[in-house]
Amino acid sequence: MTTSPKQKSSVLPTGGGAALLDPEDAVILLLDHQSGLFQTVKDIPVADLRRNVEVVARLATLLNIPVITSASEPSGSNGPLMPEIHEIATHAVYVPRKGEVNAWDNGDFVDQVRATGRRTLIMAGVWTSVCVMFPALDAVAAGYDVYAVIDASGDPSEMASRTSLARFVQGGVKPTSANALLSELHRTWARPEAAELAKLYGLAAPNYAAVMESFQKAQAVARASA
Amino acid sequence: MTTSPKQKSSVLPTGGGAALLDPEDAVILLLDHQSGLFQTVKDIPVADLRRNVEVVARLATLLNIPVITSASEPSGSNGPLMPEIHEIATHAVYVPRKGEVNAWDNGDFVDQVRATGRRTLIMAGVWTSVCVMFPALDAVAAGYDVYAVIDASGDPSEMASRTSLARFVQGGVKPTSANALLSELHRTWARPEAAELAKLYGLAAPNYAAVMESFQKAQAVARASA
Amino acid sequence: MTTSPKQKSSVLPTGGGAALLDPEDAVILLLDHQSGLFQTVKDIPVADLRRNVEVVARLATLLNIPVITSASEPSGSNGPLMPEIHEIATHAVYVPRKGEVNAWDNGDFVDQVRATGRRTLIMAGVWTSVCVMFPALDAVAAGYDVYAVIDASGDPSEMASRTSLARFVQGGVKPTSANALLSELHRTWARPEAAELAKLYGLAAPNYAAVMESFQKAQAVARASA
Amino acid sequence: MTTSPKQKSSVLPTGGGAALLDPEDAVILLLDHQSGLFQTVKDIPVADLRRNVEVVARLATLLNIPVITSASEPSGSNGPLMPEIHEIATHAVYVPRKGEVNAWDNGDFVDQVRATGRRTLIMAGVWTSVCVMFPALDAVAAGYDVYAVIDASGDPSEMASRTSLARFVQGGVKPTSANALLSELHRTWARPEAAELAKLYGLAAPNYAAVMESFQKAQAVARASA
Amino acid sequence: MTTSPKQKSSVLPTGGGAALLDPEDAVILLLDHQSGLFQTVKDIPVADLRRNVEVVARLATLLNIPVITSASEPSGSNGPLMPEIHEIATHAVYVPRKGEVNAWDNGDFVDQVRATGRRTLIMAGVWTSVCVMFPALDAVAAGYDVYAVIDASGDPSEMASRTSLARFVQGGVKPTSANALLSELHRTWARPEAAELAKLYGLAAPNYAAVMESFQKAQAVARASA
Amino acid sequence: MTTSPKQKSSVLPTGGGAALLDPEDAVILLLDHQSGLFQTVKDIPVADLRRNVEVVARLATLLNIPVITSASEPSGSNGPLMPEIHEIATHAVYVPRKGEVNAWDNGDFVDQVRATGRRTLIMAGVWTSVCVMFPALDAVAAGYDVYAVIDASGDPSEMASRTSLARFVQGGVKPTSANALLSELHRTWARPEAAELAKLYGLAAPNYAAVMESFQKAQAVARASA
Amino acid sequence: MTTSPKQKSSVLPTGGGAALLDPEDAVILLLDHQSGLFQTVKDIPVADLRRNVEVVARLATLLNIPVITSASEPSGSNGPLMPEIHEIATHAVYVPRKGEVNAWDNGDFVDQVRATGRRTLIMAGVWTSVCVMFPALDAVAAGYDVYAVIDASGDPSEMASRTSLARFVQGGVKPTSANALLSELHRTWARPEAAELAKLYGLAAPNYAAVMESFQKAQAVARASA
Amino acid sequence: MTTSPKQKSSVLPTGGGAALLDPEDAVILLLDHQSGLFQTVKDIPVADLRRNVEVVARLATLLNIPVITSASEPSGSNGPLMPEIHEIATHAVYVPRKGEVNAWDNGDFVDQVRATGRRTLIMAGVWTSVCVMFPALDAVAAGYDVYAVIDASGDPSEMASRTSLARFVQGGVKPTSANALLSELHRTWARPEAAELAKLYGLAAPNYAAVMESFQKAQAVARASA
Repeated sequence: MTTSPKQKSSVLPTGGGAALLDPEDAVILLLDHQSGLFQTVKDIPVADLRRNVEVVARLATLLNIPVITSASEPSGSNGPLMPEIHEIATHAVYVPRKGEVNAWDNGDFVDQVRATGRRTLIMAGVWTSVCVMFPALDAVAAGYDVYAVIDASGDPSEMASRTSLARFVQGGVKPTSANALLSELHRTWARPEAAELAKLYGLAAPNYAAVMESFQKAQAVARASA
Repeated sequence: MTTSPKQKSSVLPTGGGAALLDPEDAVILLLDHQSGLFQTVKDIPVADLRRNVEVVARLATLLNIPVITSASEPSGSNGPLMPEIHEIATHAVYVPRKGEVNAWDNGDFVDQVRATGRRTLIMAGVWTSVCVMFPALDAVAAGYDVYAVIDASGDPSEMASRTSLARFVQGGVKPTSANALLSELHRTWARPEAAELAKLYGLAAPNYAAVMESFQKAQAVARASA
Repeated sequence: MTTSPKQKSSVLPTGGGAALLDPEDAVILLLDHQSGLFQTVKDIPVADLRRNVEVVARLATLLNIPVITSASEPSGSNGPLMPEIHEIATHAVYVPRKGEVNAWDNGDFVDQVRATGRRTLIMAGVWTSVCVMFPALDAVAAGYDVYAVIDASGDPSEMASRTSLARFVQGGVKPTSANALLSELHRTWARPEAAELAKLYGLAAPNYAAVMESFQKAQAVARASA
Repeated sequence: MTTSPKQKSSVLPTGGGAALLDPEDAVILLLDHQSGLFQTVKDIPVADLRRNVEVVARLATLLNIPVITSASEPSGSNGPLMPEIHEIATHAVYVPRKGEVNAWDNGDFVDQVRATGRRTLIMAGVWTSVCVMFPALDAVAAGYDVYAVIDASGDPSEMASRTSLARFVQGGVKPTSANALLSELHRTWARPEAAELAKLYGLAAPNYAAVMESFQKAQAVARASA
Repeated sequence: MTTSPKQKSSVLPTGGGAALLDPEDAVILLLDHQSGLFQTVKDIPVADLRRNVEVVARLATLLNIPVITSASEPSGSNGPLMPEIHEIATHAVYVPRKGEVNAWDNGDFVDQVRATGRRTLIMAGVWTSVCVMFPALDAVAAGYDVYAVIDASGDPSEMASRTSLARFVQGGVKPTSANALLSELHRTWARPEAAELAKLYGLAAPNYAAVMESFQKAQAVARASA
Repeated sequence: MTTSPKQKSSVLPTGGGAALLDPEDAVILLLDHQSGLFQTVKDIPVADLRRNVEVVARLATLLNIPVITSASEPSGSNGPLMPEIHEIATHAVYVPRKGEVNAWDNGDFVDQVRATGRRTLIMAGVWTSVCVMFPALDAVAAGYDVYAVIDASGDPSEMASRTSLARFVQGGVKPTSANALLSELHRTWARPEAAELAKLYGLAAPNYAAVMESFQKAQAVARASA
Repeated sequence: MTTSPKQKSSVLPTGGGAALLDPEDAVILLLDHQSGLFQTVKDIPVADLRRNVEVVARLATLLNIPVITSASEPSGSNGPLMPEIHEIATHAVYVPRKGEVNAWDNGDFVDQVRATGRRTLIMAGVWTSVCVMFPALDAVAAGYDVYAVIDASGDPSEMASRTSLARFVQGGVKPTSANALLSELHRTWARPEAAELAKLYGLAAPNYAAVMESFQKAQAVARASA
Repeated sequence: MTTSPKQKSSVLPTGGGAALLDPEDAVILLLDHQSGLFQTVKDIPVADLRRNVEVVARLATLLNIPVITSASEPSGSNGPLMPEIHEIATHAVYVPRKGEVNAWDNGDFVDQVRATGRRTLIMAGVWTSVCVMFPALDAVAAGYDVYAVIDASGDPSEMASRTSLARFVQGGVKPTSANALLSELHRTWARPEAAELAKLYGLAAPNYAAVMESFQKAQAVARASA
């Protein structure tokens, strides 16, 4: 996996935003989004979860952000990784594990992360409280700046979900959502990818797709009658 | 719009099912699924609503059931009809209206229904309490057997939604859901369209898509190790 | 109170709609929407309830439908009638009661209803299970066609609310909502009051106000750039 | 148990209300409100349930309506009847059972009901779906007019509760709530018990107690400054 | 499958209960409780659903009520029948189907029902709106008295679930719950199976298990100190 | 207001509990529990809120903990203080304010707190986000150890309530609940007030009242049969 | 934009409140409250959101607090700024952006904030997780004291909303609500604007409007009868 | 109670995971899971709570982690400890208390904890806000690393539950859930206990049991047809 050299993108504003995610320093880790585990997710409907993961994968592809995936025992009952991820993010690198529940316990996985030279980790996975929490806490301990995309992840109950959010904050992991991540990486409409990014809002916030349909129709009607 | 001649499909069981929908007698009416109205729907997420409408449209296409659509003032703020319907159900007939809120108040619409020669109407629309309710009550009064697909329709509040369900039952309209309609028209796995129908369950009940992914992977693993 | 002579409005479609409300035969009864009782309503937020009552009052005024109001012990802790009703519907007639919980137990009230010569009663009030339910059941027994506007009414718990809906259906009262009533009386956009009626949808379904704002802006932008 | 001879109370309005409960014909049946069963109730908080039962008991006492209670195996794990009922309604008659789940299966119980000479039964109990449902369906079959006070009763899940409501309506049992029952029996403020009845609204709809406190304070302040 | 000859059980009360289920006339139909379909159930947690099915199976075994099961394509992605049913109800008869979605479309299934000579059908299954609804409507049409055990069944959304309940009532199917069914068949504590039946309440209403534990401990402590 | 001299109560355990509330150092501040403000509370039913405030007042009385109350414009629309507080906690001191929203802005109030010589403040009030939040933040700034009893307080929406909880934690205020406060002050059953304290659990957690009723009955039955 | 010179208002209490917002040091930033974005808000009904924004705008006007607004691509599908803001707060300054998602990335916006000379920023916007979060984090990094008005802002899901609240707390942003902000700036009833401020509580907590109506009527009745 | 000597288990990965629980240093404390207290739990269904406690007990047994239990007045109305704990974890040590609400106030309990030589405490109990919170805060003060298993514990309301979570985080206690604890102790599938651990996921996340059933059936079908 080759990664972009570390430098500020020319599209980013120069004056502000020091507190925000730097896309040039980021790597996205998608962990254990597997069909068997999806059945146990109870804090978000599985259709929404998959759509949010798709948003993250499309975003990574559009903005050329490295993606590393992994799966927990995909030949067993946990089931296969959702296929959309690698179909969309063809540049994603898959790291097999040797039984470790926590991807950070797998040396190959950590090596792959280190090889990107990036220090900001954006993680999502199923379960949030396990497959995201454990590597996130370990990565914070190793000095990384870590974001957890809560709604591109899933937990087996609402109670577990609230508990995960609290533990992330306590452990110094920054919680975010797919739509906020999209916006934080998008950063400005004055960039060449803007039209493609716009479509992703219709996935992350489905009412937005209808907003865009209404807008285009209203303008077409106005122009036709102008 | 040409419709199938009225005769029992050879794929249907002969012994039972007299109380169920007869697909040979059915016509599907999709009313006012428009982008502006979608924003007001509060009893179902708009992504789920659109997916359920897509299920109905795909089902109609697969089983060759006539579809009639209409829209309420689509050049105004109600917005355009969701494009997926006519993209999927290319055989659907669109009937423009002259301002009538209730499609049944429009003579062309009623004529189009009558022209199918069918007496079982399957309706969905936005709002449930208006665009489905009014023609449904009128159609019952005109002697039709009417089904309302509640989750391919939408109402502006949970309270309005519960109220609609009660009024349908009171008025002799049969309430159903997209998944139940799919099953009631599907009727048997011993038919040529079975594989295509199977995919629709993954849309109507999204966890089912993951069930199928798990199943196929489990079998592939077993066969590889056999 | 003078009421319109019974005849079909020229704006109404002639072909269909026999199952729907006839606005020429309707009278609106707004019962006990009082500030003290509002505090006990738990099935709808009081802001939404008042906005829905406002929709009904504006609708009555626009379409010249008679309105009769009443209040239960307004000098006591039940509090005054919400002032918007008579401010908006200046043609509304207020009937004081002599302590009766059920407005139908008050002879003056029933006389006022009879004086309209209309047989379709559209009722709303607080509590739904009491101030609407009791006169509604009595009116059905007296041969009237009765509608209860569920979300322009309020009950002291969700459980009481569900119970009211069931009892209405059981008793032959037709349940509806403010938005559906608006649509059922509106009936067609091809009428002089259309622009005024359009505004009411922004009250009954608040997202619709934003839909209209977006539409107008989109058209203005398109025209400016045309 | 002596019961009032059947005649219309002089406090009741004479003109209307034929569709409503006649308090002179009513008997209240409170079934199996037992401490052990209370723990299984999940469709209403137990504090609210007990308060609603208290409302019914106080109402019966104020208006001199006969009350019959029973309990299911009170020496076993179902636990004792909630003591408030007989403390408040000292005129209530307790009928022990011989193991029957359905009170209507117990001859003594049915005899006690018949002995009142009344044909309108107001029932509440735990569980709604069992201890109310079974005697209610049997009583309807025996020609009684039957009301079920849904929120003075309790079921072991929300799903069971919705199911009970549907089965009551299907079976011809009229569903009501404690507050609606209070109002339906109260009927008019122009009666000697009005002040005592007013207090019960503060139990049935707890915000009403604060409404009365505010009212009295506001008047006291106004008078002091007059 | 041999079934009990039709005669009233000696344990049942003789005076009342004509409106209730007659266990001597009942047969239980458990339809398509399959592991793949379970993943799509969203109106009840799968642990509760399985526990309720277990209650029904244990009840059938204790009271010697015939049970017929079936599954929809159990070698495909719908998955195997939950094993507990046949483990508990060893007398249950399994009827394979030939692809029919609706068990009533399968002649063998209907023959098996007819062979019991019983006219009261107690049905549960996944999905409620399909696997229970279709045979239930057909059985009502065929003159059977039909009960649907709502919480031993499951639907793919809350909206579909509410819709099913309404359609059952509309179609003359009696809705019930596992706990109510247990009580309706239990009928009296004065029967030899009482102790075994008591345990089932701890499954149908889990707080009841703790009620019994508390009761036994309290008595043991009292006796020890007596 | 005389307060207990500062010394460890002999009933408290000596070995542990350093991290817990010291009742000898505590003063309870009950702020603006007024009938008008109660109507705006939407994060807890008003009956539960009042019962929790009653628990706190009874606890203070039983354990002789000083109580200071205040009200915001009680002669205006905010309404009178709920009367139960001073009826139960007859030792409570009421401090009138001169229009300040924040009790800590009132010098008399702060003086009264200081006069107790205690440094641990247990606060509750309506609204949580205002009448508790503002003095709590000020008291933390002044070096006090501050507890907020969340469910003896109330906020105007669930969203405001979650926001308050977050701001308390951020500001160093310790959030607790009425039941937890009862337990933290109760501390041991080996104290003379134990029987009286036990009753309070039935108020703070209403199912506990039924637990005690079941327990006593079970023991009585066992003893009677011993 | 001219701003008030920095000095303590004479209406504020002098003794306490150091931990609270200083209105003399505050500037209000209203970001991207646009009609298209409103359609995607799912953590608060849009009517409530707009009413809360109105409260903030009215409060700023009454207390002469500077307001800066901005919008994200208002000529595109995001739609126009809600018009009420500038209609009410005529002193508000609008800063156009050049495509930046994060207002703090726009130099003109930051300059406008600096020009006020104030260091306390009160922010609200749509989406909370984006349009409020990003400038809030940047402003904290730049040394400002930052408040986020959670319910005058909106996020596309409940899950995103909970996540935003956690990230605000983690990042040192103080979360508040419209009603709490009103109270915190109101501070005392002993000020000339008190009557105008009182009306705002009826917007921020709609039940309060009915409380005031009841109060005035109760006093009027008392005076009339005095 | 003999405990394992402190050394890293050979099954654990060596490279990562420093931020996670060390099972070799852990002791599990199960506090006051009593039948009477269970009835007051309202933030989790009691069946789920007991199943999660069972998961913890089975996990402790499988991985040979010491368990200490205690109960609060088990001969009184709080009721007996749920029997499953000691049935499953036969190595668990029960410590009776002398009336202390807070187990950490009991010297024997603290001594027992100290005797394990372990510094990581995993606590669960009823109530979360009391029986877990108090010893958790005391243990943190005493230098222990403390985890609270939120869903193997229970609180008397949702509001109390959210409050507990916030107070844990504020007090330095790490919140977790039964499923996350299982995963964090499980750590790798490459260990001899893997098959036994796999079964526990079906308890902690019940849909997982059906996932495993589907998987095994799919493989059996594939092998049979291979």
